[in-house]
Amino acid sequence: MENPVLAEVTRGNTVESRHRGAAIVIDADGAVVFSAGDVERPVFPRSAVKSIQGLPLIESGAADRYGLTEPELALAISSHSGEPEHAQTAIGMLRKAGREAGCLECGAHWPTNEKVARALAKSGAEPTALNNNCSGKHAGFVCLSCALDEDPAGYVKADHAVQQAVRGALEAVTGAAHTAEHRGTDGCSIPSYAIPLRALALGFARMGTGHGFGPERAKAAARFRAAAAAHPFMVAGTDRFDTRLMGLLGARAFTKTGAEGVYCAALPELGYGIALKCDDGAGRAAEVALAALIARFLPMDDASAAAFVPLREAVLKNWNGIEVGRVRAPAG
Amino acid sequence: MENPVLAEVTRGNTVESRHRGAAIVIDADGAVVFSAGDVERPVFPRSAVKSIQGLPLIESGAADRYGLTEPELALAISSHSGEPEHAQTAIGMLRKAGREAGCLECGAHWPTNEKVARALAKSGAEPTALNNNCSGKHAGFVCLSCALDEDPAGYVKADHAVQQAVRGALEAVTGAAHTAEHRGTDGCSIPSYAIPLRALALGFARMGTGHGFGPERAKAAARFRAAAAAHPFMVAGTDRFDTRLMGLLGARAFTKTGAEGVYCAALPELGYGIALKCDDGAGRAAEVALAALIARFLPMDDASAAAFVPLREAVLKNWNGIEVGRVRAPAG
Repeated sequence: MENPVLAEVTRGNTVESRHRGAAIVIDADGAVVFSAGDVERPVFPRSAVKSIQGLPLIESGAADRYGLTEPELALAISSHSGEPEHAQTAIGMLRKAGREAGCLECGAHWPTNEKVARALAKSGAEPTALNNNCSGKHAGFVCLSCALDEDPAGYVKADHAVQQAVRGALEAVTGAAHTAEHRGTDGCSIPSYAIPLRALALGFARMGTGHGFGPERAKAAARFRAAAAAHPFMVAGTDRFDTRLMGLLGARAFTKTGAEGVYCAALPELGYGIALKCDDGAGRAAEVALAALIARFLPMDDASAAAFVPLREAVLKNWNGIEVGRVRAPAG
Repeated sequence: MENPVLAEVTRGNTVESRHRGAAIVIDADGAVVFSAGDVERPVFPRSAVKSIQGLPLIESGAADRYGLTEPELALAISSHSGEPEHAQTAIGMLRKAGREAGCLECGAHWPTNEKVARALAKSGAEPTALNNNCSGKHAGFVCLSCALDEDPAGYVKADHAVQQAVRGALEAVTGAAHTAEHRGTDGCSIPSYAIPLRALALGFARMGTGHGFGPERAKAAARFRAAAAAHPFMVAGTDRFDTRLMGLLGARAFTKTGAEGVYCAALPELGYGIALKCDDGAGRAAEVALAALIARFLPMDDASAAAFVPLREAVLKNWNGIEVGRVRAPAG
């Protein structure tokens, strides 16, 4: 059974490309509000679940012990663009735990923000692990490890206390078993577990409301939501989709992209969680598909709705700045 | 009706993403050797047809009038990576026609080769239109325009003599009408026309054999094939798929990638043309799907077959260099 088209790419009057996928909107009791395609097939959530992976950082007391600030908590659940403020915030987190960048195990890569990468190249410098889009999450892992009195070395491995705590949070929040059978290695070397979209959306409905959580977990989820709403730049970066979405909607939407076409979100005032995956892994399609779902369910005044249009329908321009097409949810 | 899966992306033991599409292998008489999915739906061939778009450059006498060399002819049908040798070759072509880089209308972009782009940034320079992946083709358009005694200004426009000649070649070679209804604007601002994959594959079967062409057109096609086989670096660049394919197979395969998941090829000794499009526009999928089709039909000795394996199945590594998955044609 094929999944439906979640986004199409036009050129002139013709549809040039099509992105299929599955999506689900669910409340914290598991009642399905919207569903399209196969939402039971296991998918790797990748970075979309960073906020759930971050719960032990707060629940263990590590965040308070090291006095992590709201921007630092936002960075701990980010896939950032490697901009200077991101890298500086990550090293600041590590130093609060008495550590340096050398203990990060995520690997180095050039900033995903191209202008920042070119400026770095122009300066003659090379990127470090601090520029890795996951460095904030990894700085959080190092803080967690230190607070647990565990040696951070090897914190990316599935059997390290940090990843055990992370897996425990993922299983409890999503209700899905995280098994070795569906385990892969993520871009930053930590384990990633494939689980159904239905469980992912349920996890986000809970993260958005705290329903089904004990008081400490509900408080931790609320702190991450507040941090992301107040510092959407820290969650992603200049011109990034999460930053634009939460910059516009604030605490009304708690969103997070994941590699390979995944998007998750919570709409706290509605009690909804959203999870979607484009079959082909395309981020451009996941973005407009998520925006279309948010626009479908979240009431907006005229000004917000107008500001939201470019998120629902991305304009494609060529090297001369001429509009050549659009990326949008299919009509009808 | 859904198209079949042409390529899948694994992570650990799990399929993480899937790319659907259509593909056809056909001979110059139009006899179908292999077909999968909808090969009648119009698709934009994008840069995959640069060799057909280049025919007027040779047929008009422009290539000989300006003494274009074999590397320059290869660059004229390339989507290059903007490396210094590419940019130098493009400006050399323009100067043979008495022109400079300022008359290129493709727009400027950073070299697609990341190392080259970073070196350029480090030098403090900015990219020019010569770094545009299409600059070789556009230099050819300028040469054609000069040889036709037409002002090159506006040569990207559909009603300019250059694009009229290009459209004439495309229609004659593919046998498909190129209509305003299915016209879009390409990344480099020239018109692109959506036509069926079947017609694209037929065009490549003819380009690979000359069957159905007059003697001048057959000779022009053979010159492009020889140029690409001798200078595969000029057709693409360092580590690029066309360069690797033709570097390995030489004149046995005449291949060309196009944006949004298109690939075309000719296998001259078999008389076959190949055209495929991944529905979602993914280049990573188009590459392994093309390699799988070539491997299916083109006999190879053991050494070539072994060298071909990494083209059929791409290994994905993370930022720490750990293998995390594969991109490959689906089993069975």
